Parts: sequence; C-alpha cells; structure tokens
Amino acid sequence: MPKEATGTLLSCRAGIRVVDATLRDGGLVNDFRFSDDFVRALFAADAAAGVDYMELGYKADKDMFDPASFGAWKFCREADIERVLGGNDTGMKLACMADVGRCNFRRDICEKGNSLIDMYRIATYINAIPAAVEMIEYCAAKGYETTVNVMAISKEKEKEIDQALDMLGKSPAKAIYIVDSYGALYPEEMRVLAAKYLEAGDKYGKEIGIHAHNNQDLAFANTIECVAAGVNYLDATVNGMGRGAGNCALELLLGFLKNPKYKLLSILKFLEAGHMQALRDAGAVWGYGLPYLLTGVFNRHPSSAIRYIKEKREDIVCFMNELLDQE
Amino acid sequence: MPKEATGTLLSCRAGIRVVDATLRDGGLVNDFRFSDDFVRALFAADAAAGVDYMELGYKADKDMFDPASFGAWKFCREADIERVLGGNDTGMKLACMADVGRCNFRRDICEKGNSLIDMYRIATYINAIPAAVEMIEYCAAKGYETTVNVMAISKEKEKEIDQALDMLGKSPAKAIYIVDSYGALYPEEMRVLAAKYLEAGDKYGKEIGIHAHNNQDLAFANTIECVAAGVNYLDATVNGMGRGAGNCALELLLGFLKNPKYKLLSILKFLEAGHMQALRDAGAVWGYGLPYLLTGVFNRHPSSAIRYIKEKREDIVCFMNELLDQE
Repeated sequence: MPKEATGTLLSCRAGIRVVDATLRDGGLVNDFRFSDDFVRALFAADAAAGVDYMELGYKADKDMFDPASFGAWKFCREADIERVLGGNDTGMKLACMADVGRCNFRRDICEKGNSLIDMYRIATYINAIPAAVEMIEYCAAKGYETTVNVMAISKEKEKEIDQALDMLGKSPAKAIYIVDSYGALYPEEMRVLAAKYLEAGDKYGKEIGIHAHNNQDLAFANTIECVAAGVNYLDATVNGMGRGAGNCALELLLGFLKNPKYKLLSILKFLEAGHMQALRDAGAVWGYGLPYLLTGVFNRHPSSAIRYIKEKREDIVCFMNELLDQE
Repeated sequence: MPKEATGTLLSCRAGIRVVDATLRDGGLVNDFRFSDDFVRALFAADAAAGVDYMELGYKADKDMFDPASFGAWKFCREADIERVLGGNDTGMKLACMADVGRCNFRRDICEKGNSLIDMYRIATYINAIPAAVEMIEYCAAKGYETTVNVMAISKEKEKEIDQALDMLGKSPAKAIYIVDSYGALYPEEMRVLAAKYLEAGDKYGKEIGIHAHNNQDLAFANTIECVAAGVNYLDATVNGMGRGAGNCALELLLGFLKNPKYKLLSILKFLEAGHMQALRDAGAVWGYGLPYLLTGVFNRHPSSAIRYIKEKREDIVCFMNELLDQE
C-alpha cells in the first residue's frame, strides 16, 4: 500500500479514521447502562460529526458475565442493536470489541450478512497473541473488518512487542493498535512506539491505531503525537469517558483534525443537550485526577486508583506509599 | 555557554529550573486573595519539593490598580513579603512578575540588597519589546536576575518573533520564555518554536523557558515537549491554577522530571492538606473546559470563555457562533 504523506497542521490526511469508543470504554464506568435514547442520540451525533466508526460495546460471553449485572452493550446482541438503531443507513460504520478469553466468538459472532456490525476489534494482552490471531481470522472469515488492540504495552519488552507485531502483521487484521492501558507513556515515548508500529505496518500493509488513556492528562497529546507520526486509526470518547482517568476526548480530537468532514459542532450539540452530564448525575465517575497521575507515573493498572476514588479517600500520600510497597 | 545534552527519559538535566507560578497566574483567578497561611504553606511545600523559583505575584502599579480591590500579591511589597515569609533561608529563589506598562518600576523596584526577591520576570507583548528591554536593564542593574516572557506569540508572525528574539538576546535577561497565552499551540508547533527560541538562546547565551496554558488540555504535554527539545525554565502551578483553563500542573511536571531533587511527595502533602480545595470552595474557578477548547482552537484570548464560565452559560453552540462572528 503506498503511504500517504503525514501532512501538516494545515492539511489533512484522507487515511484518518476516528473511532468513537464512548459506549465501549465508557461502558466500563457505568456497567454499560446507557439508555436507548442515549445510544440513539450518540449514534446521530457521531454520524453527523463524521466519525468513521462508532464502537457499540463488547461482545462478552454471557457465561462469564451475568447479563442481569450489565447493560445491553456489554454483549452487543444483534437483537439489541437492531431494536435500538433500527438499521444503519449512515456512512458511519459500527464496531464491537471482543476480548480474547472473554468472548465465545464461535457461538456469538454470526455471519456479517446477518449483522449490523462492520468491524470487530480484538483486544488482547501480549501473551495471548495466538488466541487473538485465531479470533481475527474467524471474524475476517465471517466477513468483518478487524483490528487488534495489544493492551498494556507500557509493561512489555521491546523484543516481545516486535514479535507480536510480526505475528499480527501476518494476520488479516486491518489495523494494529498501540494501547497505553496504564496512561504511563509520554509523547516522546509515543513517537518511538509509533515509529516501530508504523514500520511493521509498512512491512505488512497494516494501518496503525492509537488508544490512549488520560492518567497523566496526556491522552489527547499522545493521540495527536501519533497522528503527526502517521498513525491513522484514532480512538476517542465523548468527554473522554472511559475507565479511570478516561480516554482522549472526542471534542478535543475533532477540534484538532483539519478534514472538513469532521464536525465538532455535532458533538458540541450532543454535549449541550446534557447527555454526558446525565451520566455523571447518575453516578458515573471518570477523568484525570491525582491517584491516576500516580498509577500512570508508576506504570500500574489503574484499578487501585479507581478503588481510591470510589472509596472517596483523600489520603493521597498513603496511597502513594501503597503503590511503592507493591514495587 | 556549552549546551548540556537534552537527556533521555531516564536521565536528568542539571540546567532545568522549575518555577511555581501559583500565586502569580493563580492570583489572576482570585484577585490575589491568598491567606498568609496559604502562602507560607506553599512556600514550605515548594522549597521541600525542590522547586527552583517561587513566583510571589505581580509588581503592579497601585496608581493603576486599587490596592483595596486586590490581595497583597498583586503588588508584592517588600513589607508584605517580609511580614509573611520572614525571610528566605531555603535554597529556593523568589520571583516576581512585572508587566510592561503596568509597573512603576523606577519607583517600586528597589535595590536587590533591600529585597527578598531574587528574580524579576518581565512580561511583554511583542509590540512593546523596547519598553521590556528598558525594564530588564533596570532590574539587572539593581542586581536582580531577569527573565522575559513574550506573551501571546501564537498570534505573531515568524519574522516578528525572530526580531524580538534578536532584541531580547542582546538584553541582560537570563531566560526568554515561550508563552502560549491562548493555549492555542499543539506540541508539534511547540517543537518548531522551541527550536527557534533555542537557536536564539545558543546565539546569545540565554536559557529558554516555557509558560503553557491548558485551553486544549495540552499545558503539561507542551511543557514536556519543550523539555525534550532542550527548554530549561519550566513554569507550573499547583493543580494548574491559573487564568481560565490554567497552566501546567506542578504535580504532573514533578511526576515527569527525573532529577531526585524534585519531590512530588511534598506537593501531594500540600494538596492533601486541602489548601487548593479551600480556594475552590471560596469560589476560585479554573481548569480545562469546552469554552477554552474553543478559544484555543480559534486562537483567541480566553476572556470570552472566562465570561462564559462566570455567567454559568450552557449554550456552547451559541458561544462557538459568537467566536466565529468575531473572525
């Protein structure tokens, strides 16, 4: 595939794809309890904003997760998508995430011809790449676009990342994602990683994506750093809604992108209508804060910080000591 | 001056200087009404954190600003500094900002020997460089260190910035600051500007500084982008307190810097003690938000966004239209 020039701040790059992951990463905050109205409003807003893919949620295995404990978007059943969206006559595609080891894909993922979903995003840790490849191949054979998200790479050794890229390069995945699960990476590290991923992308004809977390208030910065490097698949969520410190905010990203197909106005309207505030009022909590800064600096899973926030603790010095104790 | 290598993420650079501008830029939020206890606690926290300079506020002209309408730190009278701090037996230096055209420096800035202030930071717009040079020379002759902050450069033409750098290069200022007053610059633009300023710095033997604003949630990212480029003077404020969307958060910056002289713990303790929350409880409002995103994207002074927040407006689409009307 001939590479498009990365462009300047005044130009735009046709290869950019914006993925709104609000329902999926944001669903981790509220157990996927989005009202049908919310989902419809977001779908309309995303389509009008020029978003390329809207991720609806996870394809989780109901044998592992009790459907009574979660909203519909944990499972993304075709019947629910059909019921809420009716269909999809927009130019925007629909995506769904499937976690390695938490998705009964042979049972739950049907032929593309019977589905409103266009793309499956396979999420994997680096030690489960063969299982991820199996899922990618399965989904591709069923007729779906696929991407693969290798999580928590800030913990991984360079040699292992290289090996993972080689294995995934040979898979049918369309794009391979850099995923900073711990919000631990700085922009200058992102540049190095992006160069590595893009080199593999060039070799194997894959696009590269970025999924950033905001633990050190760098999700947007890291995302546009990747854009400058040539990364084309960009995850974002409205108001940055996502686990813990959240993600790159879609409104910031659309304010940055220069392609006139992207309309920040549509997301501003969605925000002005109060949809996100309603989620916060209902108890959903996310966004940058001190405990996330610390788990980010120490390159840790944010779970302890999420617990700190949930327990309304205010002893941040003690929390730092707890993190140091675990070194 | 031989240039120090810019270092890596594992190394540190002895030339780095952290400037805590909480009282000064934060003072713009609460009219400089900081309690004596707050100032003492911040002074102790900064000194213990290894902060290199604590900026106390402005040296404003009382003929232009009514002292009854502001707290003491708008004016930084020697008597107030003496009364509150007693003295300064820490290794940390004290700084004060003087605005071109708003400071009666010949009357109000005394000999260094009679002052607890170590450094004057001269703030200027690009069209007032000769007046800035006059103040820099005056302060240097009185025995102070000086820096110069050229504000709002995102609006300026490259040729004019070049000319300003030449004029300031010949002044006695120790450091020349990149100031993104509108929070309009992206990291990739910061890199270009930093290279330009550093080139002038090499030529004239000046350090370069960065003062970032958070309108697009990029203050920290832009600051560390500059660090990577070789910029050594770094402004930050606790919790990012500063006009409008605020500044680079000191806690984020100290989490990033690798020199063991910097102690994030000290700032965490200051935060845990509730000093910043008390300011918010007393009505001080700052930090990233949608209206700042828009003034940042449109490269505007944040005043309209500050007014929007103050008036508790929620019609962000209308606000965007107002900004477009002013193009």
